[in-house]
Amino acid sequence: MTNFISLSDVTDLNALIQEGLSVKKNPFADQALGKNKTIGLIFFNSSLRTRLSTQKAAQNLGMNVMIMNVGQDSWGLEMEEGTVMNADKAEHVKEAAAVIGRYCDMIGIRAFAELKDREKDYREQVMTQFQKYAGVPIVNLESATRHPLQSLADCITIEEFKVKRRPKVVLTWLPHFKPLPQAVANSFCEWMNRIDVDLVVTHPEGYELAPAFVGNACVTHNQEEAFEGADFIYGKNWSSYTHYGQVLTQDPSWMMTMEKLQLTDNGKFMHCLPVRRNMKVTDEVLDSPQSLVIEQAANREWSAQAVLKTILTNL
Amino acid sequence: MTNFISLSDVTDLNALIQEGLSVKKNPFADQALGKNKTIGLIFFNSSLRTRLSTQKAAQNLGMNVMIMNVGQDSWGLEMEEGTVMNADKAEHVKEAAAVIGRYCDMIGIRAFAELKDREKDYREQVMTQFQKYAGVPIVNLESATRHPLQSLADCITIEEFKVKRRPKVVLTWLPHFKPLPQAVANSFCEWMNRIDVDLVVTHPEGYELAPAFVGNACVTHNQEEAFEGADFIYGKNWSSYTHYGQVLTQDPSWMMTMEKLQLTDNGKFMHCLPVRRNMKVTDEVLDSPQSLVIEQAANREWSAQAVLKTILTNL
Amino acid sequence: MTNFISLSDVTDLNALIQEGLSVKKNPFADQALGKNKTIGLIFFNSSLRTRLSTQKAAQNLGMNVMIMNVGQDSWGLEMEEGTVMNADKAEHVKEAAAVIGRYCDMIGIRAFAELKDREKDYREQVMTQFQKYAGVPIVNLESATRHPLQSLADCITIEEFKVKRRPKVVLTWLPHFKPLPQAVANSFCEWMNRIDVDLVVTHPEGYELAPAFVGNACVTHNQEEAFEGADFIYGKNWSSYTHYGQVLTQDPSWMMTMEKLQLTDNGKFMHCLPVRRNMKVTDEVLDSPQSLVIEQAANREWSAQAVLKTILTNL
Repeated sequence: MTNFISLSDVTDLNALIQEGLSVKKNPFADQALGKNKTIGLIFFNSSLRTRLSTQKAAQNLGMNVMIMNVGQDSWGLEMEEGTVMNADKAEHVKEAAAVIGRYCDMIGIRAFAELKDREKDYREQVMTQFQKYAGVPIVNLESATRHPLQSLADCITIEEFKVKRRPKVVLTWLPHFKPLPQAVANSFCEWMNRIDVDLVVTHPEGYELAPAFVGNACVTHNQEEAFEGADFIYGKNWSSYTHYGQVLTQDPSWMMTMEKLQLTDNGKFMHCLPVRRNMKVTDEVLDSPQSLVIEQAANREWSAQAVLKTILTNL
Repeated sequence: MTNFISLSDVTDLNALIQEGLSVKKNPFADQALGKNKTIGLIFFNSSLRTRLSTQKAAQNLGMNVMIMNVGQDSWGLEMEEGTVMNADKAEHVKEAAAVIGRYCDMIGIRAFAELKDREKDYREQVMTQFQKYAGVPIVNLESATRHPLQSLADCITIEEFKVKRRPKVVLTWLPHFKPLPQAVANSFCEWMNRIDVDLVVTHPEGYELAPAFVGNACVTHNQEEAFEGADFIYGKNWSSYTHYGQVLTQDPSWMMTMEKLQLTDNGKFMHCLPVRRNMKVTDEVLDSPQSLVIEQAANREWSAQAVLKTILTNL
Repeated sequence: MTNFISLSDVTDLNALIQEGLSVKKNPFADQALGKNKTIGLIFFNSSLRTRLSTQKAAQNLGMNVMIMNVGQDSWGLEMEEGTVMNADKAEHVKEAAAVIGRYCDMIGIRAFAELKDREKDYREQVMTQFQKYAGVPIVNLESATRHPLQSLADCITIEEFKVKRRPKVVLTWLPHFKPLPQAVANSFCEWMNRIDVDLVVTHPEGYELAPAFVGNACVTHNQEEAFEGADFIYGKNWSSYTHYGQVLTQDPSWMMTMEKLQLTDNGKFMHCLPVRRNMKVTDEVLDSPQSLVIEQAANREWSAQAVLKTILTNL
């Protein structure tokens, strides 16, 4: 593995999940590996878990960390090729990526979807340009269409908590008043389709995800039916892919409640966080022993550490 | 000591002051203690001394430091329980604190008073909620009503510079055009009441501090009388506690001057900084050999280091 | 060398350039030197290369790094002496510098020209005040009138790529729509005048730099003539020094193009970055093998490391 931009960079997913469980048991075993190695963490958007867990994972590995908030610590970056740069962006990614790549042994990048132009978002310009010009491994800290460090943490969490060989996993849309990216939902489907689970996706009409991510998962507009016998409920809001970036409904009947959790087979509730309580999910669900959201967030550290360790090993 | 939120967390104040003086003499003696330990520093408000001195103290102890500005690096946090989160706060402290607590061995938090609702500020919601949900020790980097790392540095400074067994210490209100929190003044009273000094508090009418903090200190509206024979003058502005958060006067006759300093028994001038020159205190006082403000700020490093060391020892 | 504020702090420039080339070959050889030493990096303005390369260089040397964005992490600093501080600046540099100097073994500072008052900018108040009050070595991370870490990286780059004993180096003004400081151009002239090159400066009328920096360099308004036989073209925009801070022209005929580069003796193109593509320089030039901009930016790490190492050695 030389980059970690999407699942296609992972040659052996099962080995990577096991690596996550292994570094979790022994976090400081590989500090020689990261000595005098530096990761640059470049944020085009806000972050809490990703920022802290990736920094922590790198430090566990003995690495140095340099963090930069684009447009705050530095100026905006132009991503388009061939443009006349007479507007607000003071530097081109061609230079920025190449220069950061000279100071860092690997670069983590967070850059959300703008949700205005679907073509543009799904082209994954920021990741693609950094990969093209940085000359060092790129780690996706959530991009326009994917959040693979989250998905790996989700796989680790399911591996830890599953009680059946092939659990039923349901991704359910939850209501939200703001348009959110599809990245977490896309990635979750993509990764679940590669491990040994039965994936069901449920959402209101108009919220169909891009087919390439959904794959052969069962899709239904009937949330309660979807929940029946489920082992894991994975809640998330996303804006419409077909009516791109729009909020088509905020229907509160899609909120996650204890009644719905009881439809499952003693199912666990998962969510990538942040979560808006009592809009997307009730307090009762989040505060119940069936909620895994904190364990799942804690696993972000081991997900990041497994990825950074694998990249370090291949440097 | 498992938390450092207020003086009540300190079992042996004198030992803690001596620990501060001890780490000052030998800053790098305890680096094994902090190895592979991480402190998260979470800022809801701006900081200069607290940010740098706490980071430095942690590094002296061999710790890793992760810093996050809430609402800038990340998003706003909801503090109220049971609320429907359909407004500007994207994450609840229940999740944020618990997650940060999984990445960090201890958490430092700065969160000022809002000065709108006295009840609410004095409930110390941010500290209380983080303590409740983080699952790791919490260090107060200045909260709505207290600034104990400052007070410990003040105790260390008085211990270093006192020339009498029981010095006379005067806390005086100074004029300012903006409403400032009572935290430093509250904490200073609270801590002075626990060490061997005579505490006098002087301020204009209407600026009475909360009785629980003032304790048995002598309170007077006559600043010059208060200064007579004083060994330490501790200047600070605060907004009204009774007319909560209001600026009742900016009376320039309360400014600290050289003439007033000469009323003392060769008294030393202290201030927690930042200080607005020639509004609260004249240049002449701050630039005189009787000013301890830089020594006092320098002691913030040893105050923080004594606290972090003590918490590390008890982990 | 105890400070690195301008070229006058450098006693042996050639030795410093050689030190840069030496740390480039062996970046991690001096980690004992920086152990338990801390550099504070204080930013009054945005930064990408300077922030990352100086942090990296310090970490290569085994140092700890503390970064603070003034006015964002902390509040604004008053620089004028004797003022009544009743406006927006909450702290005076007298206190801020002295306090940071107690937490740090050296301090790097970035503070751009305001381009309103030439006298004031050229007085270099921020650097001067920090030097006066910090009590520890100051490193200029780009000040109102100079950018010596950039100039040292430029010297290193020319040393690496020159093919003649005494190359011809041309500093050319390039068009830009915003008023930019003269710092990089000033510094470049100052440093080139101290190494073994023929310096030519070319710009439109009205863009004359301060004579003290230009020295005996040949100055011409004829850009094409200047380029003839050049070994290095150093492009940069700056606003007018005589009509202080003004943009007198954006004449696109001054843009750097491949045609102009072909007037040189197989000349290399240099620019300190960030650069606005197709306004100051065409894509073709920047993407050609004759462009050194990435090598030059990469040398910022070694420039900073040579300076920090020299200061550490003299602590």
